[in-house]
Amino acid sequence: MTVTNAFAQKIAEDFVRAWTGKDVDTALSLLADDVVCEAPSGTIEGVEGYRRFLEPFASSIVGATVTGVLGDDTNAAAVYTVDTPFLKDFRGIDYITAENGKITRVISVFDRLPMAQARGDIQQ
Amino acid sequence: MTVTNAFAQKIAEDFVRAWTGKDVDTALSLLADDVVCEAPSGTIEGVEGYRRFLEPFASSIVGATVTGVLGDDTNAAAVYTVDTPFLKDFRGIDYITAENGKITRVISVFDRLPMAQARGDIQQ
Repeated sequence: MTVTNAFAQKIAEDFVRAWTGKDVDTALSLLADDVVCEAPSGTIEGVEGYRRFLEPFASSIVGATVTGVLGDDTNAAAVYTVDTPFLKDFRGIDYITAENGKITRVISVFDRLPMAQARGDIQQ
Repeated sequence: MTVTNAFAQKIAEDFVRAWTGKDVDTALSLLADDVVCEAPSGTIEGVEGYRRFLEPFASSIVGATVTGVLGDDTNAAAVYTVDTPFLKDFRGIDYITAENGKITRVISVFDRLPMAQARGDIQQ
Protein backbone atom coordinates (compact mmCIF):
# COMPACT_ATOMS: atom_id res chain seq x y z
CA MET A 1 0.00 0.00 0.00
CA THR A 2 1.27 3.44 -0.92
CA VAL A 3 0.44 6.50 1.15
CA THR A 4 1.49 9.82 -0.32
CA ASN A 5 0.70 13.48 -0.27
CA ALA A 6 1.34 13.47 -4.00
CA PHE A 7 2.91 16.92 -4.23
CA ALA A 8 4.63 16.10 -7.52
CA GLN A 9 1.36 14.88 -8.97
CA LYS A 10 -0.31 18.17 -8.11
CA ILE A 11 2.44 20.41 -9.50
CA ALA A 12 2.67 18.23 -12.65
CA GLU A 13 -1.05 18.67 -13.23
CA ASP A 14 -0.80 22.44 -12.73
CA PHE A 15 2.21 22.53 -15.08
CA VAL A 16 0.72 20.55 -17.94
CA ARG A 17 -2.67 22.26 -17.73
CA ALA A 18 -0.93 25.64 -17.85
CA TRP A 19 1.26 25.06 -20.89
CA THR A 20 -1.27 23.06 -22.88
CA GLY A 21 -3.63 25.96 -22.12
CA LYS A 22 -1.01 28.32 -23.63
CA ASP A 23 -0.26 29.96 -20.27
CA VAL A 24 3.49 29.60 -20.58
CA ASP A 25 4.29 32.10 -17.81
CA THR A 26 2.31 30.13 -15.23
CA ALA A 27 3.96 26.90 -16.38
CA LEU A 28 7.44 28.42 -16.12
CA SER A 29 6.69 29.82 -12.63
CA LEU A 30 6.48 26.21 -11.40
CA LEU A 31 10.03 25.41 -12.56
CA ALA A 32 13.19 25.78 -10.48
CA ASP A 33 15.60 28.35 -11.94
CA ASP A 34 18.09 25.58 -12.70
CA VAL A 35 15.54 23.11 -14.08
CA VAL A 36 16.95 20.46 -16.40
CA CYS A 37 14.82 19.21 -19.27
CA GLU A 38 15.68 16.03 -21.12
CA ALA A 39 13.88 16.53 -24.44
CA PRO A 40 14.00 14.40 -27.61
CA SER A 41 16.36 16.96 -29.17
CA GLY A 42 18.74 17.01 -26.19
CA THR A 43 19.17 18.54 -22.75
CA ILE A 44 17.88 22.04 -21.98
CA GLU A 45 19.06 23.86 -18.87
CA GLY A 46 17.40 26.73 -17.01
CA VAL A 47 14.02 28.41 -17.16
CA GLU A 48 14.88 30.71 -20.06
CA GLY A 49 16.12 27.78 -22.13
CA TYR A 50 12.88 26.01 -21.34
CA ARG A 51 10.90 29.06 -22.46
CA ARG A 52 12.63 28.96 -25.87
CA PHE A 53 11.81 25.23 -26.10
CA LEU A 54 8.19 25.52 -24.99
CA GLU A 55 6.87 28.86 -26.20
CA PRO A 56 6.88 28.31 -30.00
CA PHE A 57 5.08 25.00 -29.60
CA ALA A 58 2.63 26.16 -26.92
CA SER A 59 1.70 29.22 -28.95
CA SER A 60 0.59 26.98 -31.83
CA ILE A 61 -1.82 24.90 -29.73
CA VAL A 62 -5.47 25.11 -30.75
CA GLY A 63 -6.80 22.37 -28.44
CA ALA A 64 -5.54 20.06 -25.70
CA THR A 65 -6.57 17.13 -23.52
CA VAL A 66 -4.84 15.99 -20.33
CA THR A 67 -5.32 12.22 -20.39
CA GLY A 68 -4.02 11.57 -16.90
CA VAL A 69 -1.52 12.61 -14.26
CA LEU A 70 0.06 10.00 -12.02
CA GLY A 71 2.55 10.54 -9.27
CA ASP A 72 3.69 10.65 -5.73
CA ASP A 73 5.42 13.25 -3.60
CA THR A 74 8.58 13.40 -5.74
CA ASN A 75 7.82 12.23 -9.28
CA ALA A 76 4.86 12.47 -11.61
CA ALA A 77 3.91 11.70 -15.20
CA ALA A 78 1.39 13.77 -17.17
CA VAL A 79 -0.02 12.41 -20.43
CA TYR A 80 -1.49 14.89 -22.91
CA THR A 81 -2.61 15.27 -26.49
CA VAL A 82 -2.62 18.60 -28.27
CA ASP A 83 -3.83 19.85 -31.63
CA THR A 84 -1.96 22.43 -33.63
CA PRO A 85 -2.68 23.63 -37.19
CA PHE A 86 -0.21 20.98 -38.45
CA LEU A 87 -0.56 18.17 -35.91
CA LYS A 88 -3.76 16.45 -34.82
CA ASP A 89 -3.95 14.44 -31.58
CA PHE A 90 -0.26 14.90 -30.98
CA ARG A 91 0.64 12.92 -27.87
CA GLY A 92 3.36 13.36 -25.32
CA ILE A 93 4.25 12.70 -21.72
CA ASP A 94 6.06 14.97 -19.27
CA TYR A 95 7.73 13.06 -16.45
CA ILE A 96 8.68 15.52 -13.74
CA THR A 97 10.67 15.52 -10.51
CA ALA A 98 9.80 18.03 -7.77
CA GLU A 99 12.09 19.27 -5.01
CA ASN A 100 11.57 22.10 -2.53
CA GLY A 101 8.26 23.06 -4.06
CA LYS A 102 9.43 23.42 -7.65
CA ILE A 103 9.91 21.21 -10.69
CA THR A 104 13.63 20.49 -11.01
CA ARG A 105 13.61 18.00 -13.89
CA VAL A 106 11.31 17.43 -16.85
CA ILE A 107 11.74 14.38 -19.04
CA SER A 108 9.69 15.29 -22.10
CA VAL A 109 8.80 12.42 -24.43
CA PHE A 110 7.06 12.92 -27.77
CA ASP A 111 7.38 11.83 -31.36
CA ARG A 112 9.26 14.27 -33.59
CA LEU A 113 8.48 12.31 -36.76
CA PRO A 114 5.10 14.00 -37.50
CA MET A 115 6.79 17.38 -36.99
CA ALA A 116 9.52 16.44 -39.49
CA GLN A 117 6.85 15.21 -41.91
CA ALA A 118 4.92 18.48 -41.55
CA ARG A 119 8.14 20.33 -42.42
CA GLY A 120 8.71 18.10 -45.45
CA ASP A 121 11.98 16.63 -44.15
CA ILE A 122 11.02 13.01 -44.84
CA GLN A 123 11.95 11.38 -48.13
CA GLN A 124 9.38 8.57 -47.97
CA MET B 1 -3.57 12.14 0.56
CA THR B 2 -3.76 9.17 -1.76
CA VAL B 3 -4.07 5.59 -0.50
CA THR B 4 -3.76 2.89 -3.11
CA ASN B 5 -2.84 -0.72 -3.56
CA ALA B 6 -1.10 0.33 -6.75
CA PHE B 7 -1.91 -2.79 -8.76
CA ALA B 8 -1.38 -1.02 -12.08
CA GLN B 9 1.99 0.25 -10.90
CA LYS B 10 3.08 -3.29 -10.09
CA ILE B 11 1.93 -4.83 -13.37
CA ALA B 12 3.44 -1.92 -15.34
CA GLU B 13 6.78 -2.49 -13.67
CA ASP B 14 6.63 -6.23 -14.41
CA PHE B 15 5.64 -5.47 -18.00
CA VAL B 16 8.36 -2.95 -18.77
CA ARG B 17 11.08 -4.94 -17.03
CA ALA B 18 10.07 -8.02 -19.02
CA TRP B 19 10.11 -6.48 -22.49
CA THR B 20 13.13 -4.26 -21.97
CA GLY B 21 14.80 -7.46 -20.72
CA LYS B 22 13.84 -9.10 -24.05
CA ASP B 23 11.38 -11.49 -22.36
CA VAL B 24 8.53 -10.73 -24.76
CA ASP B 25 6.47 -13.79 -23.78
CA THR B 26 6.32 -12.74 -20.13
CA ALA B 27 5.41 -9.19 -21.16
CA LEU B 28 2.62 -10.42 -23.44
CA SER B 29 1.26 -12.72 -20.70
CA LEU B 30 0.37 -9.59 -18.71
CA LEU B 31 -1.84 -8.20 -21.51
CA ALA B 32 -5.56 -8.83 -21.91
CA ASP B 33 -6.38 -10.70 -25.13
CA ASP B 34 -8.14 -7.64 -26.49
CA VAL B 35 -5.51 -5.12 -25.38
CA VAL B 36 -5.48 -1.86 -27.30
CA CYS B 37 -2.18 -0.11 -27.88
CA GLU B 38 -2.03 3.51 -28.97
CA ALA B 39 1.42 3.73 -30.56
CA PRO B 40 3.03 6.60 -32.48
CA SER B 41 2.31 4.74 -35.74
CA GLY B 42 -1.37 4.14 -34.92
CA THR B 43 -3.62 1.81 -32.96
CA ILE B 44 -2.73 -1.86 -32.50
CA GLU B 45 -5.37 -4.31 -31.30
CA GLY B 46 -4.92 -7.69 -29.65
CA VAL B 47 -2.00 -9.57 -28.16
CA GLU B 48 -0.74 -10.96 -31.46
CA GLY B 49 -0.73 -7.51 -33.03
CA TYR B 50 1.20 -6.28 -30.04
CA ARG B 51 3.72 -9.09 -30.48
CA ARG B 52 4.38 -7.98 -34.07
CA PHE B 53 4.85 -4.40 -32.80
CA LEU B 54 7.08 -5.28 -29.87
CA GLU B 55 9.16 -8.29 -30.86
CA PRO B 56 11.37 -6.78 -33.60
CA PHE B 57 12.26 -3.85 -31.37
CA ALA B 58 12.72 -5.86 -28.16
CA SER B 59 14.95 -8.38 -29.94
CA SER B 60 17.35 -5.57 -30.89
CA ILE B 61 17.83 -4.31 -27.31
CA VAL B 62 21.36 -4.56 -25.96
CA GLY B 63 20.79 -2.62 -22.71
CA ALA B 64 17.94 -1.02 -20.79
CA THR B 65 17.21 1.15 -17.77
CA VAL B 66 13.83 1.56 -16.09
CA THR B 67 13.91 5.18 -14.88
CA GLY B 68 10.72 5.01 -12.85
CA VAL B 69 7.25 3.54 -12.60
CA LEU B 70 4.42 5.63 -11.18
CA GLY B 71 0.84 4.60 -10.73
CA ASP B 72 -2.19 3.70 -8.75
CA ASP B 73 -4.60 0.79 -8.85
CA THR B 74 -5.82 1.47 -12.40
CA ASN B 75 -3.19 3.44 -14.33
CA ALA B 76 0.58 3.55 -14.39
CA ALA B 77 3.42 5.14 -16.33
CA ALA B 78 6.77 3.43 -16.85
CA VAL B 79 9.73 5.46 -18.13
CA TYR B 80 12.59 3.58 -19.76
CA THR B 81 15.66 4.04 -21.90
CA VAL B 82 17.04 1.31 -24.12
CA ASP B 83 20.11 0.86 -26.25
CA THR B 84 20.05 -0.95 -29.57
CA PRO B 85 22.84 -1.26 -32.15
CA PHE B 86 21.40 1.82 -33.90
CA LEU B 87 19.91 3.85 -31.04
CA LYS B 88 21.66 4.96 -27.87
CA ASP B 89 19.71 6.04 -24.76
CA PHE B 90 16.45 5.76 -26.62
CA ARG B 91 13.70 6.94 -24.30
CA GLY B 92 10.05 6.09 -24.11
CA ILE B 93 7.12 5.88 -21.75
CA ASP B 94 4.42 3.22 -21.55
CA TYR B 95 1.23 4.50 -19.92
CA ILE B 96 -0.92 1.50 -19.07
CA THR B 97 -4.44 0.85 -17.81
CA ALA B 98 -5.17 -2.35 -15.87
CA GLU B 99 -8.53 -4.05 -15.46
CA ASN B 100 -9.35 -7.46 -13.98
CA GLY B 101 -5.72 -8.29 -13.39
CA LYS B 102 -4.47 -7.60 -16.92
CA ILE B 103 -3.23 -4.66 -18.94
CA THR B 104 -6.06 -3.55 -21.24
CA ARG B 105 -4.53 -0.43 -22.76
CA VAL B 106 -0.99 0.68 -23.50
CA ILE B 107 -0.29 4.23 -24.62
CA SER B 108 3.25 3.95 -25.95
CA VAL B 109 5.10 7.24 -26.45
CA PHE B 110 8.52 7.47 -28.07
CA ASP B 111 10.33 9.48 -30.71
CA ARG B 112 10.37 7.86 -34.14
CA LEU B 113 12.72 10.49 -35.59
CA PRO B 114 16.00 8.76 -34.56
CA MET B 115 14.64 5.53 -36.06
CA ALA B 116 13.87 7.30 -39.33
CA GLN B 117 17.33 8.89 -39.27
CA ALA B 118 18.94 5.47 -38.70
CA ARG B 119 17.06 4.18 -41.74
CA GLY B 120 18.19 7.17 -43.83
CA ASP B 121 14.69 8.53 -44.41
CA ILE B 122 15.52 12.10 -43.43
CA GLN B 123 16.59 14.61 -46.06
CA GLN B 124 18.28 17.05 -43.66
